[in-house]
Amino acid sequence: MYREQIKVLDCTIRDGGLINKHDFDANFVKSVYRAIAASGVDYMEIGYKNSRELFSDKEYGAWKFCDDEHIKRVSDGIESDTKISVMVDVGRVNLDDVKPASESPVDMIRVASYAKGIDKAIAMVNHFVQKGYETTINIMAVSRDQGPELDEALHQIEEESKADIIYVVDSFGSLYQENIEDLVKRFKKIIKTKEIGFHGHNNQQLAFSNTIEAIIHGANYLDGTIYGIGRAAGNCPLELLVGFLKNPKFDIRPILDVIAKEFIPLREKIEWGYIIPYVISGIMNEHPRAAMALRNSDKKDNYREFYESLVNIGLE
Amino acid sequence: MYREQIKVLDCTIRDGGLINKHDFDANFVKSVYRAIAASGVDYMEIGYKNSRELFSDKEYGAWKFCDDEHIKRVSDGIESDTKISVMVDVGRVNLDDVKPASESPVDMIRVASYAKGIDKAIAMVNHFVQKGYETTINIMAVSRDQGPELDEALHQIEEESKADIIYVVDSFGSLYQENIEDLVKRFKKIIKTKEIGFHGHNNQQLAFSNTIEAIIHGANYLDGTIYGIGRAAGNCPLELLVGFLKNPKFDIRPILDVIAKEFIPLREKIEWGYIIPYVISGIMNEHPRAAMALRNSDKKDNYREFYESLVNIGLE
Repeated sequence: MYREQIKVLDCTIRDGGLINKHDFDANFVKSVYRAIAASGVDYMEIGYKNSRELFSDKEYGAWKFCDDEHIKRVSDGIESDTKISVMVDVGRVNLDDVKPASESPVDMIRVASYAKGIDKAIAMVNHFVQKGYETTINIMAVSRDQGPELDEALHQIEEESKADIIYVVDSFGSLYQENIEDLVKRFKKIIKTKEIGFHGHNNQQLAFSNTIEAIIHGANYLDGTIYGIGRAAGNCPLELLVGFLKNPKFDIRPILDVIAKEFIPLREKIEWGYIIPYVISGIMNEHPRAAMALRNSDKKDNYREFYESLVNIGLE
Repeated sequence: MYREQIKVLDCTIRDGGLINKHDFDANFVKSVYRAIAASGVDYMEIGYKNSRELFSDKEYGAWKFCDDEHIKRVSDGIESDTKISVMVDVGRVNLDDVKPASESPVDMIRVASYAKGIDKAIAMVNHFVQKGYETTINIMAVSRDQGPELDEALHQIEEESKADIIYVVDSFGSLYQENIEDLVKRFKKIIKTKEIGFHGHNNQQLAFSNTIEAIIHGANYLDGTIYGIGRAAGNCPLELLVGFLKNPKFDIRPILDVIAKEFIPLREKIEWGYIIPYVISGIMNEHPRAAMALRNSDKKDNYREFYESLVNIGLE
């Protein structure tokens, strides 16, 4: 598949950081940045921009806050065309913490929002556009909130927001390829002046195939993470995506190197990927919260009881 | 997805046995049989029927030969509607070893063949039909042999063979969903009097999504293995397939139980699944042979060198 407009965004540190409270050390993040830059991937999302009024430095690592100095420390001196992105959640960022783009190493700010919080997301995006950033709105949990509120949110985005890209986010890893086709078409029908993106979760080993499906139906912004790292089951493995895209600007080899050097050892220390409670959450279209708690308990491999607890939610 | 004609075949022991020379002990195979029977899965493929003139009992376990007594030992006394299948490779079975179906615990024999060996496969299948078995022809490596020889083989099968089901086999785990659509349609255009099946490999985490794609385009026989076990990257995880199919005859819970009890510990001892050299083989549309050899060497995580060795095959 080769389409010039396609852009790939690596969110290894940002989504992977949801496993370890964003406490990656600077050398690790530098290795990732170097690999991403060398592979020709278009964007690297390096963490969240969260307010220190809500989260403490004592509890979280640097990539929960993404201070400009931290970003510069891992990126300065490395030759790169890769742009840097940070994510913000509606209501969790102090807008005064964000300098104008011209004074910051950050190029893009992505605003994560549920369909129902779209007013605030639009206001934030327009604020960041004013400050000179590329912006996206990532609509989370579209496997749940597919009623008329989704169309309303999309119309409002198209009419009122200055975001460049609108993402379909399969937060629970529960969507199948037919759903992706329907959703990308539905987004494109309403969003005519912006690009469509896709961010998958890998609970059912569908993050990569759903990304391909999104490409087929016209999404041009695609998220992946190295070795599939990310919360719970993780994301679309970047190496698969780069292997699939035939654009000669990409080079898979630096990604293979950093997997061998950094991610194989890391996977021995923290877990993500194909883990049965996350599979069950995906099948059930549930947030992975309960499965993550299970994995931290002494019942971590009691799959049947966990399955039945989700089946019976509706019966309580 | 619910379609009454859909049948699921578990090939845990047969394809998983390619990792350990089919040397699973009887208690393990009995646990798998009990789980498969309780889950309502239609078939369980328990191994290969190979000639002892070609392979030795000293080197291989019982499921390389599938003597009737071995099968009875693990299945007798368990209430079950699950039929038992064995696989044969063209040229590796002694036909005299195969009793008439009425005297055997085996219900189905699947003949694996490349498109170019189809004459022999058809002769074998017709022999097994004569003896009273359900039969399939599994056309291997369709990602490689897609020229006119494939159409010729399909025409010959349709006209000369009495096989019940013809399988598309993605031996190298290299096919994307668009290829699956094309191949299933191509098979169905020629094969009008038999069912179509699909057997995927999981090198690029596409075995499950490709199975869904095959279902969408009309394949009714679907292979899976528990926890995705199988040669190299393994196969479509049975638990995902059963979770997707909404047929009330299936129960995912016995599969979840046997994963916790048997497959989590087994995975500590032998490896299959998402392993980078298998990813590379899949992307390159190569047999996993070289990647399997790499994993048994001291270069097992030297991905770049392995990648370059495959890229350069064409340049030698």
